[in-house]
Amino acid sequence: MESEWIAHLRRRIGPHAAVPLGIGDDAALIELGTGSRCVVTVDMLTDGVDFRLAEADPRRVGRKALAVNLSDLAAMAAQPLAAVVALALPRRGGMALAQDLYDGLLPLAERYDVAIAGGDTNSWDGPLVISITLLGKVGPRGPLRRGGARPGDRIVVTGAFGGSILGRHFDFEPRVREALLLAERYELHAGIDVSDGLSLDLARIASESGCGAMLWPHALPIAFDARCLADRLADGSTALDHALADGEDFELILAVAPDEADRMLAEQPLGVPLTAIGQFVPEPGLWLADSAGRKTPLTPKGYEHEMT
Amino acid sequence: MESEWIAHLRRRIGPHAAVPLGIGDDAALIELGTGSRCVVTVDMLTDGVDFRLAEADPRRVGRKALAVNLSDLAAMAAQPLAAVVALALPRRGGMALAQDLYDGLLPLAERYDVAIAGGDTNSWDGPLVISITLLGKVGPRGPLRRGGARPGDRIVVTGAFGGSILGRHFDFEPRVREALLLAERYELHAGIDVSDGLSLDLARIASESGCGAMLWPHALPIAFDARCLADRLADGSTALDHALADGEDFELILAVAPDEADRMLAEQPLGVPLTAIGQFVPEPGLWLADSAGRKTPLTPKGYEHEMT
Repeated sequence: MESEWIAHLRRRIGPHAAVPLGIGDDAALIELGTGSRCVVTVDMLTDGVDFRLAEADPRRVGRKALAVNLSDLAAMAAQPLAAVVALALPRRGGMALAQDLYDGLLPLAERYDVAIAGGDTNSWDGPLVISITLLGKVGPRGPLRRGGARPGDRIVVTGAFGGSILGRHFDFEPRVREALLLAERYELHAGIDVSDGLSLDLARIASESGCGAMLWPHALPIAFDARCLADRLADGSTALDHALADGEDFELILAVAPDEADRMLAEQPLGVPLTAIGQFVPEPGLWLADSAGRKTPLTPKGYEHEMT
Repeated sequence: MESEWIAHLRRRIGPHAAVPLGIGDDAALIELGTGSRCVVTVDMLTDGVDFRLAEADPRRVGRKALAVNLSDLAAMAAQPLAAVVALALPRRGGMALAQDLYDGLLPLAERYDVAIAGGDTNSWDGPLVISITLLGKVGPRGPLRRGGARPGDRIVVTGAFGGSILGRHFDFEPRVREALLLAERYELHAGIDVSDGLSLDLARIASESGCGAMLWPHALPIAFDARCLADRLADGSTALDHALADGEDFELILAVAPDEADRMLAEQPLGVPLTAIGQFVPEPGLWLADSAGRKTPLTPKGYEHEMT
């Protein structure tokens, strides 16, 4: 299991003075000396897992490869600055494919003023792999972490959840500007972006914060895609199930003190809706609260790389 | 051809204020604002190209993946600080493989005090891909670039060349400490590390500097491995041919003014020999000078990713 591997790696590697924030958050914080710091994150996408090149427009693949990294920096409330792009291209048609990937990623880089600073372009006998590393800087309040949620904090999310496989997992807008604006105007205790699944990523932020989380399912913004997918699959999974477990929504989950959350929700300062979907609680674990206030345990679900 | 692709990418992407030094050098220089800067480089290794997992100890693969990045920072005379590691692991046995890769790379990271700050661990149906991004910082003299060689400068190299495929391409020592020491004590005009081939990488430093290079073949330090390989293959290629074209020596090529080069060579401040193997010349191109001073054109040879 991927999460066990990451836990193992954290134990094995341990802390380092140059990295105040390392493995286990959305990006790492690096001390460059003389009080200057940067954040760095890497995401590798592979054919057959994150996209299917036989079906997908490679420009959407290139865009996604950068967008998932932008989303990681958004989760830290960091300003993206520069990226390096490593490619393993199939030998046949690799040049045209590389062009298409860049056709997809360059407009997004421009939109967020991210410099493409370099990279490594390889050809090989395997399928496409694209790995982007994104550097950024944190504002005066420092990076937003996973581990800062406190019991009582509201769980506030951007946007809606579920069914991203219908297309949104390619074309989502990373919440970079939203995160920077929120971090500037409000006191945020913790944050994460939803890459693997709302319930799974919520469990991560709760676990890092040493607390649990109670979800209000009636409040959860369910994407239209989640309803479409539930109807289409008709396998017994509800739209709510999809919203809780599908992943690749790339929306933000934030921990905000109740008063601050009330202010934020009243002001709705973003183009995308902000919604309170529950609260952090002292006991570790994840629960659903029904309308009568009864709580039932919720097993975190989402995408994890199988590792054997 | 890989070099054409890189030239295309440089034209297409253009300059950016946040990246004073970008595509086309061994690492990129990123402005983080408020006068603080870092260097970043990425290298992706793939099964079947940079190693053969069926034959190689995965610990040597993990070590190499970090070492090639360290060599890139050495080429910039930069101090390595922190790395992020992205893996695409075959599903079967991926966990054990990941352990072995880390068993190889962690001791090298420790040796150079490089923090492993994070990464992205994926499993998929393809062969192993390992992509490491390394961050570092430059000293007060700024980064050593490819483009600073001047006609008349001596071509000074560390170590010896050729036949790395016999094992040295895994177990080489990246010239990080050597580069930092040389950059501190001497005035270096330009530098590159030999990843793809001595003649090819020399042609790159010459081309970036807008000049040419004349090699003194009798002065060239030929590795014992190059002689072994020439004997073993017996295909008409000489040990000198191997030294000029094999690549993955991960030694440094430096451009140094004649007086400074004389001082450096007399002092021999490193554990590894420094040798002057020629000089930069005004006319673009690469030549071999024979002992009578006659020059013959030399075609740069080495490894380039085929891109079609």
